[in-house]
Amino acid sequence: MRADELAEDYPVVRLDSDAVRAAKTIATKKIPGLIVVDDGGAPYTVLPGSQVLRFVIPQYIQDDVALARVFDEKSTDELLRELRRVSVRDLLPRRQDVEDLPVVDCDASMIEVAAVMARFHSPLCVVLDDDRIVGAIRISRLMEQLLADVPADS
Amino acid sequence: MRADELAEDYPVVRLDSDAVRAAKTIATKKIPGLIVVDDGGAPYTVLPGSQVLRFVIPQYIQDDVALARVFDEKSTDELLRELRRVSVRDLLPRRQDVEDLPVVDCDASMIEVAAVMARFHSPLCVVLDDDRIVGAIRISRLMEQLLADVPADS
Repeated sequence: MRADELAEDYPVVRLDSDAVRAAKTIATKKIPGLIVVDDGGAPYTVLPGSQVLRFVIPQYIQDDVALARVFDEKSTDELLRELRRVSVRDLLPRRQDVEDLPVVDCDASMIEVAAVMARFHSPLCVVLDDDRIVGAIRISRLMEQLLADVPADS
Repeated sequence: MRADELAEDYPVVRLDSDAVRAAKTIATKKIPGLIVVDDGGAPYTVLPGSQVLRFVIPQYIQDDVALARVFDEKSTDELLRELRRVSVRDLLPRRQDVEDLPVVDCDASMIEVAAVMARFHSPLCVVLDDDRIVGAIRISRLMEQLLADVPADS
């Protein structure tokens, strides 16, 4: 089976998209992250949901989670207000921290898709037809197909 | 809202569970990974789907994905056959590579849950009542709740 047969429609945001809208897309579509494209529509990176939280939650709380106990509803609202002022570009790690993108061509085999996900520790692989995004393959969908003929009892 | 109100039932596997059955659970439940418990039922680690693929796909193919093109159906079957001989324990990275587990107590606040996911780059947080696993919170569920009162238009 080819990669484009496994690919599903997948939400895409632009670097200048509203950060709150991006976060709400993760929430409503129940997905672990989003595909980010540059101004020309070419794939730029994947924005994992945890990266949104890394922006919202101050570093000193990430370092010592027990400090989160002091945050009441009002200070939580203040943290979230920050998100309303920024775009997807501001949520991304510094450029040197951005890893290569997990992408495959549309005629890639399942093993190629598996190799890309394994290499990037990614639950998602973007499928390209030249530079156009055909969709994305979730790891659960790949495994379903890959293991279809493998019996569960060894 | 408390962590245990956000927690959903989530599949749990044991260290000695069948690896194929674990992989099939990821596929059928459409989840990015599994909670792994030790022989006493205490949380041990999270097994991301990509870690299963890292076991199946030889390192030299992860290093040079183009080599995956030479794998035909027969050699793909051989890779998968390996999975039938092992347990979940064998899929995990070496012990020193296993990170702390993203867990919170059942009375944790949303900010605590967010801080733990941010710290561990995790799309999932396990909720504990003492040592008993109440369930897990997916990042999409947390964001839905966290952003409920934040308007999308800034």
